[in-house]
Amino acid sequence: MEREELFRKVSIENDKKIVLLVLDGLGGLPLKGKTELETARTPNLDLLAAESELGLSHPIAPGITPGSGPAHLSLFGYDPLKYEIGRGILEALGVGITVGKRDVAVRGNFATLENGLISDRRAGRIATEKNREIIAYLNKKIKKIEDVEISLTSGEEHRFVLLLTGDGLSDQLTDADPEVTGRPVMYAQAKNESAAKTTRIINLFIDRLTAELADFHPANTCLLRGYALYPAIPHLKELFKLKTAAIAVYPMYKGLAQLVGMEILATGRTIEDQINTLKKHYTDYDFFFVHIKKTDSYGEDGNFAGKVSVIEEFDRFLPAVLEMLPDVLVITGDHSTPALLKGHSWHPNPVLFKAALQRQSVEPAAKFSEKECAKGILGNFNAMEVLPMMMANALKFKKYGA
Amino acid sequence: MEREELFRKVSIENDKKIVLLVLDGLGGLPLKGKTELETARTPNLDLLAAESELGLSHPIAPGITPGSGPAHLSLFGYDPLKYEIGRGILEALGVGITVGKRDVAVRGNFATLENGLISDRRAGRIATEKNREIIAYLNKKIKKIEDVEISLTSGEEHRFVLLLTGDGLSDQLTDADPEVTGRPVMYAQAKNESAAKTTRIINLFIDRLTAELADFHPANTCLLRGYALYPAIPHLKELFKLKTAAIAVYPMYKGLAQLVGMEILATGRTIEDQINTLKKHYTDYDFFFVHIKKTDSYGEDGNFAGKVSVIEEFDRFLPAVLEMLPDVLVITGDHSTPALLKGHSWHPNPVLFKAALQRQSVEPAAKFSEKECAKGILGNFNAMEVLPMMMANALKFKKYGA
Repeated sequence: MEREELFRKVSIENDKKIVLLVLDGLGGLPLKGKTELETARTPNLDLLAAESELGLSHPIAPGITPGSGPAHLSLFGYDPLKYEIGRGILEALGVGITVGKRDVAVRGNFATLENGLISDRRAGRIATEKNREIIAYLNKKIKKIEDVEISLTSGEEHRFVLLLTGDGLSDQLTDADPEVTGRPVMYAQAKNESAAKTTRIINLFIDRLTAELADFHPANTCLLRGYALYPAIPHLKELFKLKTAAIAVYPMYKGLAQLVGMEILATGRTIEDQINTLKKHYTDYDFFFVHIKKTDSYGEDGNFAGKVSVIEEFDRFLPAVLEMLPDVLVITGDHSTPALLKGHSWHPNPVLFKAALQRQSVEPAAKFSEKECAKGILGNFNAMEVLPMMMANALKFKKYGA
Repeated sequence: MEREELFRKVSIENDKKIVLLVLDGLGGLPLKGKTELETARTPNLDLLAAESELGLSHPIAPGITPGSGPAHLSLFGYDPLKYEIGRGILEALGVGITVGKRDVAVRGNFATLENGLISDRRAGRIATEKNREIIAYLNKKIKKIEDVEISLTSGEEHRFVLLLTGDGLSDQLTDADPEVTGRPVMYAQAKNESAAKTTRIINLFIDRLTAELADFHPANTCLLRGYALYPAIPHLKELFKLKTAAIAVYPMYKGLAQLVGMEILATGRTIEDQINTLKKHYTDYDFFFVHIKKTDSYGEDGNFAGKVSVIEEFDRFLPAVLEMLPDVLVITGDHSTPALLKGHSWHPNPVLFKAALQRQSVEPAAKFSEKECAKGILGNFNAMEVLPMMMANALKFKKYGA
């Protein structure tokens, strides 16, 4: 039996509340002997850790460093190697586009064409403001090709997202990107017959865009790649009978939450705002995903002290969460982002699991830290097991088999 | 390679003895700070724990609460999501029926028919004694339908098991159960062509039974559901070259052991009787499954002290097991049954693993308990790995690959 079938079989509804607090990139590595989490003064987290179950979770598998997409799918209970989210979809989510079932999302670059050859694959990294102007112009000029709606959204610098909306679209075509300079515009090719229409539209789009941008040097053509259809992921409602809501600030995470069927709650940008949003909607849902981004941002920047300060800020608002008395509370990361590495890493996530029906460890944890989690009674496990464990502790799973 | 193929490849026979002692529903949750296992005075278990490998095992997967069927399959080395045992088979095992390869087992309820409508789906929960009388009568009256043998066995109150024995039978038919009262008798329907014969037999049986019971109000008709064919599970002999025996008191567990090819040894009902049975047959087999039921029964009743007392009773007879010097000894549960929950739970099983070729932990365990098992060197693992680990420690697995 597939795990999805198992979950469908055993899930039941009740009014217990589950809160999943994700500090993006939470796990770290020691600098001067202490990780970011160990360095942070977190009296509230430490008290909570002493009466919680702790463990370490692998987002995908030991040794694998995940992007945000697979890392979050895993936290939402999905096998991230089974459900893949195409790069174009992630890019679209990242710029805040809502993607639907008739859409193909494509990553675009503005590029420079000189004497019939691509001379710069990033159009001199034009300013984001300039990008916005060009996109606004193009959206007026190119609204439809055949029966397919065309919609463009600016990213940073030379990047944009192209959304095709129509029937019979496919993602089975090759990149329209020569990958090196000094070559002419590269057109897409269909990988199989079903992609003939999409390939034709894509190539007509490249020609239309290039014609419209004749006077826009250095942004006078484009490269397209990472075509992605809307992923067929069963919603949390269907798998777990959960009424779910997401409290996230950044478009990518709202988008990921939407893909699994969460409602996106409007919220302010600070951690305090996000906790207030949780409080405001606390009676309306039975599962909340709260996504705190800045731990990861500072980690990516190599800003150890910045990451420490976000963890400390979160700690100050933890009592406000505890006051709501969630039946099950998990505090974890989606992946580790050690400031030392200035990027995501494969190190497993610290996991704090607080629920009524839990077991105790021989020695209560002295602190919420990677080390204490490594000693924790949950052991090392796969992050996709977090959601089933939350369901069990909320008594939302009935017995399997007799 | 499937794990079954791996096991077949590496298993070898030798005369080492493996003993798997299962205290059903052993794991618990703390009441006044201590679980059942922690509360029990278990000097012998505690001494043994100090020189054993400890760990925690998930019967199915983290968060999943199993029934006895899947939980035992897992302990016997099988993936419980791959091998499913139908509800009718479990019911048949529970009332002590031996099920074979030409059988379909079906769960039955006596029900009440009034003016052509089902007025009570449980026939007023007739006394078990009455049930036995009716079943004895019916077994005389209905012995065969077409070429299919019919055999009925009483369960508790209104429940019985119908066993069909014949060729070309199927379990692909719908429940003959209206599920609500106020409707006429519901006949089964074939889900596909292969079930035409079984469906015809089942519906003829309902009519025959209803005719025979015309004067037996309130038990004057029946509902049938949970059709199950004999499950196609490879025997332990075939997978592991083991000569296996089960020492169990309750029919369900004898039945489960039989499904995987164990011989069932006649035994008295007390733990002492069971250990004596082990001693008596110790030279005749190389793998013994000893099933102690009452830990689970008391857990299900919410009787914390009762569960504690069974663990203490077991502890008193542990030295008698150790005197036999088994080469590999495992003491564990099939699932947890915390008295606090009055039912099975998802909490992993404490596992004590004693063998000659084992490693040591930094600190020997102070006690056999869930906490100490959480610190144990075996870590958290899947219960279906227990049997392969026993095989290895008994030197019954040769090298895989060159």
